[in-house]
Amino acid sequence: MATIRDVSKYSGVSVATVSRVLNNSSKVKSTTKKKVLQAIKELNYKPNAVAKTLFKKQSYSIGLIIPDISNPFFPEVARAVEDTARHYGYRVILCNSDGNREKEKDYIEALSQNHVDGLLVTSISENSDNFKGLHMPVVALDRSKGKEIPCVYVDNYEGGKLAARTLFENGGKVFAEISGPYNLITAKERSRGFHDFLKKKEKTALTYEGEFDFKHSIVVAGKLLDENPEVDSVFVGNDQIGIALIKEAMLRGLRIPNDLQIIGFDGIEIGGLITPSLSTIQQPIYDLGKEATKLLLDLANKKHVEQTSICMPINYVKRSTTTG
Amino acid sequence: MATIRDVSKYSGVSVATVSRVLNNSSKVKSTTKKKVLQAIKELNYKPNAVAKTLFKKQSYSIGLIIPDISNPFFPEVARAVEDTARHYGYRVILCNSDGNREKEKDYIEALSQNHVDGLLVTSISENSDNFKGLHMPVVALDRSKGKEIPCVYVDNYEGGKLAARTLFENGGKVFAEISGPYNLITAKERSRGFHDFLKKKEKTALTYEGEFDFKHSIVVAGKLLDENPEVDSVFVGNDQIGIALIKEAMLRGLRIPNDLQIIGFDGIEIGGLITPSLSTIQQPIYDLGKEATKLLLDLANKKHVEQTSICMPINYVKRSTTTG
Repeated sequence: MATIRDVSKYSGVSVATVSRVLNNSSKVKSTTKKKVLQAIKELNYKPNAVAKTLFKKQSYSIGLIIPDISNPFFPEVARAVEDTARHYGYRVILCNSDGNREKEKDYIEALSQNHVDGLLVTSISENSDNFKGLHMPVVALDRSKGKEIPCVYVDNYEGGKLAARTLFENGGKVFAEISGPYNLITAKERSRGFHDFLKKKEKTALTYEGEFDFKHSIVVAGKLLDENPEVDSVFVGNDQIGIALIKEAMLRGLRIPNDLQIIGFDGIEIGGLITPSLSTIQQPIYDLGKEATKLLLDLANKKHVEQTSICMPINYVKRSTTTG
Repeated sequence: MATIRDVSKYSGVSVATVSRVLNNSSKVKSTTKKKVLQAIKELNYKPNAVAKTLFKKQSYSIGLIIPDISNPFFPEVARAVEDTARHYGYRVILCNSDGNREKEKDYIEALSQNHVDGLLVTSISENSDNFKGLHMPVVALDRSKGKEIPCVYVDNYEGGKLAARTLFENGGKVFAEISGPYNLITAKERSRGFHDFLKKKEKTALTYEGEFDFKHSIVVAGKLLDENPEVDSVFVGNDQIGIALIKEAMLRGLRIPNDLQIIGFDGIEIGGLITPSLSTIQQPIYDLGKEATKLLLDLANKKHVEQTSICMPINYVKRSTTTG
């Protein structure tokens, strides 16, 4: 492989001059520049990316810290992040934190040592110290970190209200909820919106705390149905729980949506492909990933940023688990 | 942040000596080593990862090139790869090639420039030039690259035969197949095994070429059912196609498995959660990712490797889309 010295020899200028050309310095005469560029082309010289990183303290890579890529919400996010990063010449380092604060901290330290240009994170808790004092920008994705950290998110509270209103207007009588885990702000907000709407209508809802995970959801869904056969309207914390609830309801011979209406949250692709297809409060998953990446790269490149907190729209998608 | 110079000053030895201690050189006296390590600890000095990469030409990262992380097979693979890499102190750079050879080539060049320690790939074609002459190990995952590149895979041909035998023994009369795209060796082999078994039993099967993708599969599945209402046994190239076929069959009022039996391929988690749950030829997805990563890291670290071609077992998982 050609080195910077080969380019210097070939073009008859000093290594320092080649370096100036590479860094697009204005101090180089145009004839010299032409000669150097010609040599670079003919020798197929490629400046070493690692050496450039050391010099510029910029690695053209970002870290993506998510709980678990096998949760179907995150592959859609990761795809958007990688597409967008690639468009701007950046690479994405994938990290699964399992929502574990220590694991997250380890990743942040390792990535910081590697001069990544920024971090995209969805983290376990609202106020994690893990992000304090970092020498790189951080953007929170999906899960709001409060005011200190720039974030791209949806209004989960409004989403919960919208689910409640829909089930109420569809004639629901006995309401229930299988929420996500309450230590996640997103899960808590969805739940709060759902209950607040019902309270205004002088209704209550049975509540089961769940996990954003299929295996656990199957158990909770079965429990809800066995303990409360009178329930006719359920809001679930995400689509995975919804898919599990459909399975358990069908096992028990319930007709959907006649006996039981279900509304999920997220809008993952598979929700539209199962039978019955899952009605849901849809987040613009791809756009969340895209906007978060653009915001992070703008911050990393010290561009002027109008807004460091971007709320994306949600909407209700009626499919086959609801009557209207 | 403390630098190597601070450590040198604090411990009263030269920078070169500190460097020797960091690289665990045997030339340093134990009393000196103790002093330096003490200084490193007290100053909380962390050797810069990028500088270490430049020096050792090792970045403790690997590239994972897959077609598309939003295809549900790959998040399960990616999770295994990242878990295993992390266990050995490596990071994973995620790349979506969309099965596009040019895009794949771009990734390989960029990763090579960054001194990644190796590449894990599932590529579009059997004999891609993209992997020739690389200065790092490559391991093919899922899709065999022929004999030149180490790989971890399953016997797709046997999988296709197993699907055919199962449908035949379940009393199938009119067989059909929606295969994956034939430019993928995996899809071709599954198809070949399926047809070879049936041929021995003097049976034939209608064949539709599909894609490993939900949207396209919905269209092909509908077409197969509309054009051939007499079909009672279908083998599909992967579980995504199977889920699409279930949906289209139910839309047409077919009873599964009485009117139509379906066998998928892969064993992705969602296949077991839908109703009816999808019978399938299961690959050990997590273990494929894990073994491929271990093999790659062994090669990267020039360890002795017994086998550079590892075939993992498949098995038939009976669920609700087959009678036996």
